[in-house]
Amino acid sequence: MTELYDASELIGFAVALLRAADMEPKQAEVVAPLLVEADLMGHTTHGLQLLGGYLGALEEGGMRGQGEPEVVSDRGAVVVWDGHYLSGVWLTARAIDLAVERSGQYGSCTLSLRRSHHIACLAAFLERATARGRMIILASSDPANSGVAPFGGRRQLYTPNPIAIGIPTEDEPVLIDISASITTLGLCTRLNAEGRRLEHPWLLDAEGRPSDDPAVMFAEPAGSIQPTGGLDHGHKGYGLALMIEALTQGLSGFGRADGVSEWGAAVYVQVLDPEAFAGQAPFMQQTTWLAQACRANPPALGIAAVRLPGQRALERKRQALAAGVELYPGILESLSERADRAAISLPRPISPK
Amino acid sequence: MTELYDASELIGFAVALLRAADMEPKQAEVVAPLLVEADLMGHTTHGLQLLGGYLGALEEGGMRGQGEPEVVSDRGAVVVWDGHYLSGVWLTARAIDLAVERSGQYGSCTLSLRRSHHIACLAAFLERATARGRMIILASSDPANSGVAPFGGRRQLYTPNPIAIGIPTEDEPVLIDISASITTLGLCTRLNAEGRRLEHPWLLDAEGRPSDDPAVMFAEPAGSIQPTGGLDHGHKGYGLALMIEALTQGLSGFGRADGVSEWGAAVYVQVLDPEAFAGQAPFMQQTTWLAQACRANPPALGIAAVRLPGQRALERKRQALAAGVELYPGILESLSERADRAAISLPRPISPK
Repeated sequence: MTELYDASELIGFAVALLRAADMEPKQAEVVAPLLVEADLMGHTTHGLQLLGGYLGALEEGGMRGQGEPEVVSDRGAVVVWDGHYLSGVWLTARAIDLAVERSGQYGSCTLSLRRSHHIACLAAFLERATARGRMIILASSDPANSGVAPFGGRRQLYTPNPIAIGIPTEDEPVLIDISASITTLGLCTRLNAEGRRLEHPWLLDAEGRPSDDPAVMFAEPAGSIQPTGGLDHGHKGYGLALMIEALTQGLSGFGRADGVSEWGAAVYVQVLDPEAFAGQAPFMQQTTWLAQACRANPPALGIAAVRLPGQRALERKRQALAAGVELYPGILESLSERADRAAISLPRPISPK
Repeated sequence: MTELYDASELIGFAVALLRAADMEPKQAEVVAPLLVEADLMGHTTHGLQLLGGYLGALEEGGMRGQGEPEVVSDRGAVVVWDGHYLSGVWLTARAIDLAVERSGQYGSCTLSLRRSHHIACLAAFLERATARGRMIILASSDPANSGVAPFGGRRQLYTPNPIAIGIPTEDEPVLIDISASITTLGLCTRLNAEGRRLEHPWLLDAEGRPSDDPAVMFAEPAGSIQPTGGLDHGHKGYGLALMIEALTQGLSGFGRADGVSEWGAAVYVQVLDPEAFAGQAPFMQQTTWLAQACRANPPALGIAAVRLPGQRALERKRQALAAGVELYPGILESLSERADRAAISLPRPISPK
């Protein structure tokens, strides 16, 4: 029996927990809906699953719940912030809002952000820009963490390095959320805890042999996640990863070279205003045509229909907003002790399925 | 016995052929060295191999050898040109030079270019920006051509959509040149002509079954090249391809939606000046550390050493500049009739190996 929850009740619950951990209201009110947004879209490893860790980081001081980012550089079309480990979800949302505004003036605005805390689900941010007719590119890395080896190597060096792209069309936006490695640290952690295997041998063990066992990631010495393209053409994921490292840590001027140990993120945001290029209408004509042509492409053997990136997530979101959100097992349980302590009542399921 | 040629003699030969096809000198003198640069780097499908086709396009009027691009939009940090099918190699070099200059002023300059002719080897352009301390992102698509189906589909819809990234370090630059599909049209064409197979089943036949036979690309109905990530995680290549279509054709306002039939390209250039972000020195500190850490990573079983993207190409280039360039078989032969007609003598090999 699957229990369903009302999205706004989940948001209220998350706001209350964040405020109980001393996050200021203006931050909590941005962070909570963005975490629930990930659950609405079905990205369950990057939604409320993360809240327990964030609350722990707020309590231990690893994440700051109060304050403003420091402006390191501002040339109008180009901005650098030092986030001083404020919530990465909040900082990224603010960065996107600024880049949307500035892109109207300069045509494009590029922001690089250092010492952000973790930014959760990249796909959840994209509609902030696409709903305003803008195209957005968002990428992040964590200089204190790794998980992926350079192609041909076998020692973890950098993070999976996600990159997300939002493209407006006259219909739904195209919402791309991929990474430079085949799978994510979040999925490895979850499957390892559940004693399960990955779908395919997407990892390498410590010697560089393919493996589908997430336990290799937690062994000593540790294995690594294969770059996008795998053994066959992993130089492509390797190249993407290096690009993202440079955009996030290089441009923001803080990263692995500094021997970082705090859980956090370096973030790159670029927002492009099609109106400043060849015009909004010609842009939408191209993207709408392409989106329709993708969906109309005849499916390969064994495939029901060709989907656009983000299409299933947007369908899930519509359904979850109408009928309720299904949470991944264990998420509310992981928060119940903290809720009890703060006298916050757990969200109640709206209906048994 | 492999014959080697002097790079500057090859450049002179290419300039002479381009000028004989009525390309104005200032264009020919940019195009020829960039084609030879691809051969120097070992990207032999995208160097002088292309010259015959370019000369044919100049003669038939598909490529214009005289004139200037039209400025569609110029907001300083954002520029759109209509290339009116001038040489894509020349237009791209000029676009990069402008973006390098403008990035010094705005921090970042983004240029989208429509109705360019074909732009050849993306990697060959990158040092134009990295030698000036800039980071560059360069992508292209051809709205008149295809080769790749959307992930899950089986009908060609868009091109392999290359993306190249140049990252300066205190040592050699990192020169990334990848595409959103596993392999290229150029390689399929070459192997098909030679009756050879691809290394792995990187294609799909017309029904969507994996194949290593390049003939499926030229069959009726045609197969397609698999997106980066293949059957296993090709949604990643699919996402990258859609991003590149939007950056090149969406922002430039001309593309597949217009039913294009002329061989050409839509091009996206972004140049970032690290000095305008957190500073040149911190940028170089991060990228240099990362490049060294990649090379020092212990190799997986069966791998000699971890290499950086572009490392082998730069080694090949140094060697070819010192000892001579090895041309792929058949390239000079394909140009000899045109050279005869214009009374241009073929380059002579400098030494038998």
